[in-house]
Amino acid sequence: MALINENYSKLKAGYLFPEIARRVNDFQKANPGKKIIRMGIGDVTRALPPAVITAFEEAVAEMGDEATFKGYGPEQGYEFLRHAIAKNEFQDRGVNISADEIFVSDGSKCDTGNILEIFGMGNKIAISDPVYPVYVDTSVMAGRTGNCMNNGYYEGLVYMPCSAANDFIPELPKEKVDIIFLCFPNNPTGTTASRAELKKWVEYARKNKSIILYDAAYESYIQDPAIPHSIFEIEGAKDVAIEFRSFSKKAGFTGTRCAYTIIPNELMAYTQAGEAVPVKPLWSRRHSTKFNGVSYPVQKAAAAIYTEEGKAQVQEIINYYMENAKILKQSLQDEGFTVFGATNAPYVWIKTKNDMTSWDFFDKLLNEVNVVGTPGSGFGPSGEGYFRFSSFASRDNVIEAMERIKGRL
Amino acid sequence: MALINENYSKLKAGYLFPEIARRVNDFQKANPGKKIIRMGIGDVTRALPPAVITAFEEAVAEMGDEATFKGYGPEQGYEFLRHAIAKNEFQDRGVNISADEIFVSDGSKCDTGNILEIFGMGNKIAISDPVYPVYVDTSVMAGRTGNCMNNGYYEGLVYMPCSAANDFIPELPKEKVDIIFLCFPNNPTGTTASRAELKKWVEYARKNKSIILYDAAYESYIQDPAIPHSIFEIEGAKDVAIEFRSFSKKAGFTGTRCAYTIIPNELMAYTQAGEAVPVKPLWSRRHSTKFNGVSYPVQKAAAAIYTEEGKAQVQEIINYYMENAKILKQSLQDEGFTVFGATNAPYVWIKTKNDMTSWDFFDKLLNEVNVVGTPGSGFGPSGEGYFRFSSFASRDNVIEAMERIKGRL
Repeated sequence: MALINENYSKLKAGYLFPEIARRVNDFQKANPGKKIIRMGIGDVTRALPPAVITAFEEAVAEMGDEATFKGYGPEQGYEFLRHAIAKNEFQDRGVNISADEIFVSDGSKCDTGNILEIFGMGNKIAISDPVYPVYVDTSVMAGRTGNCMNNGYYEGLVYMPCSAANDFIPELPKEKVDIIFLCFPNNPTGTTASRAELKKWVEYARKNKSIILYDAAYESYIQDPAIPHSIFEIEGAKDVAIEFRSFSKKAGFTGTRCAYTIIPNELMAYTQAGEAVPVKPLWSRRHSTKFNGVSYPVQKAAAAIYTEEGKAQVQEIINYYMENAKILKQSLQDEGFTVFGATNAPYVWIKTKNDMTSWDFFDKLLNEVNVVGTPGSGFGPSGEGYFRFSSFASRDNVIEAMERIKGRL
Repeated sequence: MALINENYSKLKAGYLFPEIARRVNDFQKANPGKKIIRMGIGDVTRALPPAVITAFEEAVAEMGDEATFKGYGPEQGYEFLRHAIAKNEFQDRGVNISADEIFVSDGSKCDTGNILEIFGMGNKIAISDPVYPVYVDTSVMAGRTGNCMNNGYYEGLVYMPCSAANDFIPELPKEKVDIIFLCFPNNPTGTTASRAELKKWVEYARKNKSIILYDAAYESYIQDPAIPHSIFEIEGAKDVAIEFRSFSKKAGFTGTRCAYTIIPNELMAYTQAGEAVPVKPLWSRRHSTKFNGVSYPVQKAAAAIYTEEGKAQVQEIINYYMENAKILKQSLQDEGFTVFGATNAPYVWIKTKNDMTSWDFFDKLLNEVNVVGTPGSGFGPSGEGYFRFSSFASRDNVIEAMERIKGRL
């Protein structure tokens, strides 16, 4: 008798974003004439930059010619892309990461969801709350938690609650933890971590032989030069951290699919007997056994963001979205909302008024002004009463959405 | 202290194909002047067909225009592709599979490696031997086996040995099993399963409430019209089987990345308490939580194989490789080898002479005639003494390789 993985039945609800899509579709069906403005899923809207398109097209043409056709590529990613990432994202910023420490993948969602596979079931995992739901959901699905408790927390995970009271910066856990998910700039709160803050985490991890899983998918939205883009800017981090990066939000690749994960050569984890084992070969084995590399034309397209034109075009798109964030922030403040994030991150995080729940606010926004955002509670219990707007919309839609809400919320 | 997943240390050796690549690279470094003919990894060499390139290019152009740009797509795959697959691969062949039962992914390697995640740890898993190594390796990595024993088998798995003695057709396991990996046309032996054979398996699975994981990555190479392309051609299979299909070998997508998995609406698995649970929603939850869909231009490229031109061009490529298989088979027989496969599959499977081991034959072939193939023992203990040639080479290389071996082996 084939048995299911019963851990799936511990999951409280559908994955957040399909649930949003479902409600929006239901509303649209019931109201076919209404123009809905979508700022819910955090999906980009600007076209791929011209330099990327040119490289993408050239690579597709290569695939049509037997002389230049590419079959299986290296599972870890083509050297041309890993080299360009190492140089432009790290070495040029004074961070010592080499191409052989980079694993190209088809998405940070996949990587952050799969990374725990190489770690033992006995690890105590700390996760900030609210945060991108994939870390919790995949931990539940893999049987790394107990049941969901009444407070919305899963037994066995160590939560680090974040709210306005602590400026949405997680505190060091009181109990000893082995694996720590951090996400800065944070999705959904838009919070960033200072150098001093990250230093505290690296010291904690070094002291406790813990590993930090650092999700930096939004690093390119950092405006303040004092804020680190990578955990590896902190001395000693290469001994204790893995970093996740993506082309999705940086260069509009949400529908094109390319990301990468950095596993330093120095990084060690341990057997139960206490023997240190390098982590990179484990991920390399996982990556080459369960993955077959990213589409060659996509890798060529991704590498094009590191050309001179590519860099300028990507920066222009980031500036565009950050101008959206500014408009959103100002408009929402004008409407009397308390607004967080939005200055070093593409997310605008607001407190609802009169303690309205996040989903009630979602429904009100959808039904009354036909605007879609993301309920804060979908990111964890501490997100209740908050709401996320994404600045990845077109300027016209941002302006129209903010016009629509005037005096209505 | 961060703990590793110690199951990884049970793995005997590196994943087969990286190991081949390592030996080939070492040889090439030591012998820079030698022209190596590679028929080892089973990687295609013919360019993507023109219809595919045109659709690919058009879709890339769409990504460069804000009006047609695509961000996140549906995790399950775009409807246009799922619909084209359902119609052309199944409905037009009289097999009742609908678009909502199809999950588009970036590779069958990923899907066959990830599928066990939705099943409980208590399942008894049966795997034929020899076979594509991913099923065993991912089972080991996930802790679904014990240690590797002296005979090369992992404790806890049920092996179904295949050799010339049973025509490389696995027999029904004597003990009751819950999950059965089958691969037809088989990689590496090139064996196919008749309708009667598959019927036997479906009956077994129905009787025992087992689930068949059917890898049909090579179905398009079947020439004999009597041989089923899909397990779903067998009545009652939708209650007990999942099927994996790929564009890799069918249409040259090994470097482009697109595949799909069929999970019928009827398919049930069970809780430990014996309650029947539909499997599709479990995979849907896994797919939407840990995966973000396949690149939009790649999906457009894949769908183009179902146009009239696309179909003809794909068939031409398949014919080309099958002509290679014919040449390989004839030449190897002329050299006195016993040859299997090669008539309904792109793989040519030979018995080495004088009981030479597979790796010894690999080294001899590489060193003496500079031709690369795949050691049979890399696919499991019963593959020892066998060797796989792939017909996915250029015609010139196939002919040259066969010229080189004349009288040398």
